[in-house]
Parts: sequence; structure tokens; C-alpha cells
Amino acid sequence: MAHLEAPLFKKMALIGIGLIGSSISRAVQKHGLVGEIVCSARTKDTRRVAKEMGLVSAAYEHSKDAVVGADLVILCTPIGTYAKLMEEIAPYLEQGALVTDVGSVKQTVVDLIEPRLPEGVDFVAGHPVAGSEKSGPAAGYADLFDNRWWILTPSEKSTDAAVEKLTQFCSAFGSNVEQMDPKHHDLVLAITSHVPHLIAYNIVGTADDLQEVTRSEVIKYSAGGFRDFTRIAASDPTMWRDVFLNNKEAVLEMLGRFTEDLTALQRAIRRSDGDTLFEIFTRTRAIRRQIIDAGQETAEPDFGRSASHDEK
Amino acid sequence: MAHLEAPLFKKMALIGIGLIGSSISRAVQKHGLVGEIVCSARTKDTRRVAKEMGLVSAAYEHSKDAVVGADLVILCTPIGTYAKLMEEIAPYLEQGALVTDVGSVKQTVVDLIEPRLPEGVDFVAGHPVAGSEKSGPAAGYADLFDNRWWILTPSEKSTDAAVEKLTQFCSAFGSNVEQMDPKHHDLVLAITSHVPHLIAYNIVGTADDLQEVTRSEVIKYSAGGFRDFTRIAASDPTMWRDVFLNNKEAVLEMLGRFTEDLTALQRAIRRSDGDTLFEIFTRTRAIRRQIIDAGQETAEPDFGRSASHDEK
Repeated sequence: MAHLEAPLFKKMALIGIGLIGSSISRAVQKHGLVGEIVCSARTKDTRRVAKEMGLVSAAYEHSKDAVVGADLVILCTPIGTYAKLMEEIAPYLEQGALVTDVGSVKQTVVDLIEPRLPEGVDFVAGHPVAGSEKSGPAAGYADLFDNRWWILTPSEKSTDAAVEKLTQFCSAFGSNVEQMDPKHHDLVLAITSHVPHLIAYNIVGTADDLQEVTRSEVIKYSAGGFRDFTRIAASDPTMWRDVFLNNKEAVLEMLGRFTEDLTALQRAIRRSDGDTLFEIFTRTRAIRRQIIDAGQETAEPDFGRSASHDEK
Repeated sequence: MAHLEAPLFKKMALIGIGLIGSSISRAVQKHGLVGEIVCSARTKDTRRVAKEMGLVSAAYEHSKDAVVGADLVILCTPIGTYAKLMEEIAPYLEQGALVTDVGSVKQTVVDLIEPRLPEGVDFVAGHPVAGSEKSGPAAGYADLFDNRWWILTPSEKSTDAAVEKLTQFCSAFGSNVEQMDPKHHDLVLAITSHVPHLIAYNIVGTADDLQEVTRSEVIKYSAGGFRDFTRIAASDPTMWRDVFLNNKEAVLEMLGRFTEDLTALQRAIRRSDGDTLFEIFTRTRAIRRQIIDAGQETAEPDFGRSASHDEK
């Protein structure tokens, strides 16, 4: 991607600089999209790392100090912090500034932020469907969003100009930008992301609690399938707690469907109904092929995982 | 690993040559462990591929033809075929031959095979805890078992000499060999492999059935976590049907624990009990670290997945 002739924004303030915030900084610098990048972070160590790694020119303890003079403000902290954050930064936001976020839930975020937004400030909620199980500023990388979807959920306080500018910004570092209704976003992500995380956390927890099978056995024989689940069950606990607290309705709905279907599978096993099992196990194969064809997954067997002994 | 001075077995017969059978052939050839390799396979195309790829010197339609003169016979077909197979090959097995298998369930296998075994033939049930979502003879590779566990479950008809020779054989191509009671094996694998596969198949099925979220949306936004599950849900349906039919008791037991725990998580979400969610999401992180430390998983974020756009 070629650098744009002029930066899209003069000053970007990242509120929080973990995996996503630091990846945005790297992507933005790689493509020369903003004039200046600053951040705020609660912990001293994070601020130090952010500066040392050249992710920002200044790192503030208080978010209100970061937003001064910024024409782009991105909330990159867990959703549970948004309400308090908005109270803090609202009086300091520039006229004409664009506020966005990267939270994994959108309707609650819109409901939280819009009433706290000053006149003359634009807001467009957003969600990059990308990530990894690592957290913190050192875990980010510039290509994290490349060829991944970045969903915008425009709402009452989103001007067309703001939506267009944010689309241009995210596209410039390789994201595919899509617009969606916030409520529908939450339903789609409940099944493609939130419930998968919940059941991964759950099975790892179940395995950890067993008396009959030791933890050492679980670890030794995890290559039979279990280890796949441990990846997303290693994701940031604060972020995920807030996702479930803020997308309750859709998660419970999708979880209800999952449990119904699982009960049917359980019944098929109990009754030795091989035909039902075979039928379900066959049709699930097709969907992976389509995800690979859509460029959202590697075609390599085993995720192209390098055998861990190679690293030793 | 250096080649042994003399081959461990003079002739190995692989009954079935899919992912596992073909990987055994490759591993055995790489390390020069047997004098001759033959196989049987039901479909003509599989036999053709096995010969063309140099996996075997001869490929037979009928298993009884493959076992003639073989001192090592490995059943590499779905467990549901074992009973009929044993009826077919029993009269043709060599005196002193060693029969083993690679099935993911062990108690039923012991119960099925031992009564059908002729006098003077050794039997040691086995299970390599390794695999990928790909099937067929072309999908195998020589390093599939390297640094993975190969569990042997000796039973009444397993002589000490047979167990020792099979241990030497599997160790020679890099596996870590462990002995276990067949029933305990089935309990351990129920939680580390069978239930994970079941819930992966299940969520992919649930997502596929939704009316409110289209299949195209599921595919587009699968990088949020869902795609991880599609890998194991793309595994061979016949093999997995047979696993569940043959490990009913342990799978239903472990599934019961999983469902109880999931109900508790559901309740925590419904009651907005953030502390319970946070506590569970925190302790699951540790177990992945231990799996990585045990050399059973890559430490790379996102499984070291290459972004799929790189392949285009």
C-alpha cells in the first residue's frame, strides 16, 4: 500500500495500548496515516514500553491529557472502562474530533458513548475482527488487520463524513471495511466469536477440575484436540469478562441453540445412532473449506503449526 | 535418528492407508525400520495412490492377502471395521506376528480383538496422539508422530516381548511411548480429544443452522474465534462416528461435566456476575503455558498461522 500524500489525521490518541492499540500504531506508522501518535495507559510499565518501542511520541497516565489536540481518538481499553473514560475525556475533546473504539460488542457501546459525547464531536463505533491470544503493547504487529474485516456500526451521532474518513483510514492499512447495524453485529459476533470463546474457556476449566484425569495427563495428550481450545482460552480475561457482560442477550440466545444441539448429539451417542452422528460430522466439513476460500484461514493442515520440537 | 542395524520387522502390513497409515509408512521408511511394506485398501484409487507415492510395494483389495507373511500388522481403519477385519485376517496371520492398531478408543478395541486372535499371535493395542484434519494417503507425513505421545494399552494377550518391540518401533521414529490401562486411556482421551471434537462439530453445526446470521457472515467474521473450531470439525466423519460409538460411557461422563460447568457460566452471565467470569477466564490461561512448556504446542501467537492472504 502506498503512503498517502497527506496524513489522514494530524494527531491520533490511543486510549489504552495493548494488543490492538499497539497494532494500530504499528499499522498506521507503516502506512504513514497520521502526523502524531500519543496514548494513555494506566500502568507505568505500559507507558514506558510504548515509548521505548516507538509506538507513541508521548504516553500519558490520564486519558484527558492524551486527547488534547487529537482529531482521532480510539478507545482501545476493555468495554467496562468506557463510561468512566468518556466522563473523563468529554470536556477535553477537540471540536470536529472523531471518536471511535475497537470493542467486540457494539450496541451497549453506542448506548454508553452517545449520551456522553459533546456537541461537535463525531462518533463511529468500530470492531476489527482480528486478534491473538497475546496481550500487551509488545504483542501487537503491523499486519494484524491486513485482509481482516473491520466492522463499523454507524449510529445517530455518526456523520457520513466521519464514516467515510474512518473507512478510508482502516482500508489504508489493509482492512476490509463493512458497515452493520450494532444489534446485528452483536448477534453475528455472538456466534462467530463470543460463544466460541465461552466454550473454549469452559472446556479448559472442566479439564482443569477433573480428579480422575490429572493435569499432567491433560497436558501430555492435549494434541488430540484439546490444545486448539487453549489458544482462545488464553485470551485477555478482563476484555472477555466485559464482552459477556455487555452482550448478554445475544450470547445467551446463541448459547441456548448450542446447548440444544449438543443435547441432540448426546442423545445420538447414548442411543448409538451412528447415522445422525455421521450426517452432522459430514456437513461441518464444508464450512471450513469456504472459510479458507474466503481468505480468512490458512489452507495448511494443523493451521500450519510448526511442531514445537523444531523450536527447541 | 540413525538407522538401526537391522530392520525391526521383516514385513509390515498396513490395514488401511489414510492419514495415519501413510504417515507410518513414511516414518518407517525414513528410519529404515522394516524390510517390506504392504497395505490393503478398499478403494482402487487409494491403492493406486499408495503405490504411486511409494508408500507400499504392494496394495491389496483384501486384507487377508496383505497379512500373509507379515510379522507386523497395523489396523489403520476406523474402529467400526475391526470386528469384520479380524474375522477376515485371523486365519491368515503368521505365527509369532504382532498385531496392533491406531484407534482412538482402547477398551472396546481390546474387547473386540482379543477373542478373535489366533493362538501364537501377539496383540498390543495402541494409539498415536497425533493427526490433522486432512484425510487420505496423500495427507500423511513422516514427522507426524515426532515428539508426540504413542500410548500402548497392553492387555491379556500382550506379551512383554511384544510390548517391548512395539515400544522400540514407535520410539525409533520419534514418538514418546507411554503405557496405560485401556479404560483409563478412554477417560483421558474423552477430555483431551473426544469431547473437544464433539463440541467443535457441534458449534459448527449450530452456526450452519442459524436463520438470523447468514452463512456468509459466519464465514466472513470467523477470525473472531470460530475458525479455530472448524479445523477439528473438518476431521474424518467415519473415524469420529466410530470413536463416539465406542467410547460412549467416558464421553457421556465428560460431556456431563462440561455441560454442568457451562450452565454455571451461563448463570454467571445472566446474573452479570463479572467476578466469577474473570476468575474462570484467568485460571485457564495457565494451562496453555504448561502445554507449550511440555513441547506439545507452538509458542507462536495464533498457532503461527500464516495470514492466508500471503498464499494468494
